[in-house]
Amino acid sequence: MLQAVSEVPTKAVILAAGFGTRMGRKPKGLLRVAGREIIHRTILLLSELGVSEFIIVTNEEYSTAYTEFMRTRNVKGRVITNRHPERGNGYSLHVAKRHVTGSFILTMADHVYSRDFIREAVRGRGLIADRGARFVDIGEATKVKTVNGRVVDIGKEIREWDAVDTGFFVLDVSIFKTTERLAREKLSMSLSDVVREAKLPVTFVDGLPWMDVDTPEDMKKARRMLVRTAVKGRGDGFISRHLNRKISTWISYHLVEHVGPGSMTAVTFAVGVLSALLNLWFPPLAAVLYQFDSILDGVDGELARARLETSKFGGYLDSILDRYVDGLFIALLAYESVSGSLWYLIVLVALLGSVMVSYSTERFKGAYFIDPYDVIKPLRYLPGKRDERVFIAMVLVLLGLVKPFFGLIAVLTNVRVAATVYLAWKRSFTTENYLMNMKYLMKEKEV
Amino acid sequence: MLQAVSEVPTKAVILAAGFGTRMGRKPKGLLRVAGREIIHRTILLLSELGVSEFIIVTNEEYSTAYTEFMRTRNVKGRVITNRHPERGNGYSLHVAKRHVTGSFILTMADHVYSRDFIREAVRGRGLIADRGARFVDIGEATKVKTVNGRVVDIGKEIREWDAVDTGFFVLDVSIFKTTERLAREKLSMSLSDVVREAKLPVTFVDGLPWMDVDTPEDMKKARRMLVRTAVKGRGDGFISRHLNRKISTWISYHLVEHVGPGSMTAVTFAVGVLSALLNLWFPPLAAVLYQFDSILDGVDGELARARLETSKFGGYLDSILDRYVDGLFIALLAYESVSGSLWYLIVLVALLGSVMVSYSTERFKGAYFIDPYDVIKPLRYLPGKRDERVFIAMVLVLLGLVKPFFGLIAVLTNVRVAATVYLAWKRSFTTENYLMNMKYLMKEKEV
Repeated sequence: MLQAVSEVPTKAVILAAGFGTRMGRKPKGLLRVAGREIIHRTILLLSELGVSEFIIVTNEEYSTAYTEFMRTRNVKGRVITNRHPERGNGYSLHVAKRHVTGSFILTMADHVYSRDFIREAVRGRGLIADRGARFVDIGEATKVKTVNGRVVDIGKEIREWDAVDTGFFVLDVSIFKTTERLAREKLSMSLSDVVREAKLPVTFVDGLPWMDVDTPEDMKKARRMLVRTAVKGRGDGFISRHLNRKISTWISYHLVEHVGPGSMTAVTFAVGVLSALLNLWFPPLAAVLYQFDSILDGVDGELARARLETSKFGGYLDSILDRYVDGLFIALLAYESVSGSLWYLIVLVALLGSVMVSYSTERFKGAYFIDPYDVIKPLRYLPGKRDERVFIAMVLVLLGLVKPFFGLIAVLTNVRVAATVYLAWKRSFTTENYLMNMKYLMKEKEV
Repeated sequence: MLQAVSEVPTKAVILAAGFGTRMGRKPKGLLRVAGREIIHRTILLLSELGVSEFIIVTNEEYSTAYTEFMRTRNVKGRVITNRHPERGNGYSLHVAKRHVTGSFILTMADHVYSRDFIREAVRGRGLIADRGARFVDIGEATKVKTVNGRVVDIGKEIREWDAVDTGFFVLDVSIFKTTERLAREKLSMSLSDVVREAKLPVTFVDGLPWMDVDTPEDMKKARRMLVRTAVKGRGDGFISRHLNRKISTWISYHLVEHVGPGSMTAVTFAVGVLSALLNLWFPPLAAVLYQFDSILDGVDGELARARLETSKFGGYLDSILDRYVDGLFIALLAYESVSGSLWYLIVLVALLGSVMVSYSTERFKGAYFIDPYDVIKPLRYLPGKRDERVFIAMVLVLLGLVKPFFGLIAVLTNVRVAATVYLAWKRSFTTENYLMNMKYLMKEKEV
């Protein structure tokens, strides 16, 4: 599979010659969704996979804007002008002819793709088509009919079809024989005309998030798609799945154009510390704010993923701060509500267990260099994760059951740690060797 | 470097035809050092690097013993009998002729090698020689004189020499032309004769632990070498480097033949829990036992590495149990010595900080898939590691300064965590991209 990475073409042609009339005549590729120009998303995601040169084909009117975009965003490649955009997007492809050699990726400036989609699509050949398009307006979409892995018909109005054209292609220069001929024969030629004539092979990439943007309504839809698919999920507990994420994605949807993940981490930490401090005056309010902070805690990650601004340090800092908010909340709630050494002993065990839940997971990653949730399935369903603990805190504090809360957390968390260790032990018989080899190979590469 | 792994020969010939007269006439390869037959150590270490077939050449007397060894230890390969061991170890090599093709490793059953040595040596060519032999009795050693990367003279008594023969060779079948000729011409032929005649190329692997075993005294020396080089070091604090390790290696030296790392982890945990419980009756004794447990804590790892019994789960369990011993010690010491909510608040912060020191390190590994001590050098010198905290606990509790102990730990640990995060943040600018690529490549391989 390592080889597949090097097979990804190093050049991409992006068609951006449309006038975006339904958008009020704007260069659609430069519109921002989730804080970034649509075209910049595609360029970043392709760059991750080894594409290093980008040819943007646009019209004379938008040429300066795209040139400026490439300069400020530091994108390698060039802007080419199609002086006859009225001749169709097939002609825009033709215009790129002199600027590519070998194989290349062809895609559209006004399509919003997820990382998952692009990662699969670059490995395909010919037209990338989707048999399970989830976010696309099928009425508006270009459909394709395939036979034996090749396009036999394509268009918006065709009656029989198998899949939807994703606007993503992996081509080589032989396509220009077709564009050459069509350019001679026809005044206007759509990309669909080129595809049909060339009888392109089809690769199916089904059900992964992508969509095209034609109207202001589509912009909102794209934003929603990016936020919804930015939920990490792995490691989420019951409360997170059924409550917190529903609210956090709503918040993220409204913030994603304006707020970066770093600021959000800071706000979340501040709210968390505030909730802990509130225990000194009014624990019930503190508990409610703590639960609200637990919802907010999902937002920075969602923003980061939707905006393509994830960073390892961001995730690292977020985890450390979460532990401190939890520790501080427990410590100050105890300070206000508990007396007597025996109860403090229970509080200390509860605090220890709370941090140990996270430690036992992270130490696993540190040892095996793999996410325990990937290899130990039951871990996902074991209770005691942060979202669940916070929710329990809110409910029990509101009911005035502070001491039972500490008792319950002391038991729940430490039982979870014991179960984690037990599952790791059971698992270690089968994975130890495989993982040892993996790590060894990694070490080799680091040298 | 990945390629180099696949270049390691898949066969190894191990010479074991000597009678071990200075050992009281025993098959030396089957003597145990650090809980394992010497020859089994070499076989395990070579197996890790891809060697999959082993040819043991022995005499008629020891043939049954080595055959039985291969069967019980599940070693792939065969035992070959040299019916004329009196003709020398050069002749033993010659006997293996019909059983190897292409390139192969040649080594000695009575040599004890460290993993580091073997990892380097398998990448060499010809005779592996050591210009900085640390554990070898130079008077007894076979020396080599090299010119332009080839052996020009070899022997125990030669006057001029550059390096010591390590008993490890990477050869190919062309060596049998030399053995063939010598076998015809001479009655007795040592391996040195073969090396000299063949003018073998030399690869230097300098200063890494290895030694040969001739006498009972050598057995002790080898055991000491394996225990000493089994100290992990990385992540050790000041107290560990200057006190704990000196004692733990002494303990390990005396236990390594008899006790496995798993039992040692259990004993260490039990002693730790006992030290925590002792706080309820006599804190000074508890504190001393806690420091003793901190010394013991190094032993299981040393035993595991010396005995080649390391396991990821073992390391994982050990870390989890350490956190619980620390948490329990703090909790029970507080239970016995502290009253008043404010002091308990400080105790809670101290407990939180103690676990967070480890969490911040492990979460870093989980995020970056790399050991923070490898990439953030100042972390090694920041105080607040476990060995230092335990020592501080002992000193302050013995001085009756329990409350200052909690205050100091509360500050020290959390400052260390803050410093760790700060260093990770500073570091993230330079490593983020590199590590992202690394992780991406890893993912590819997992598929």
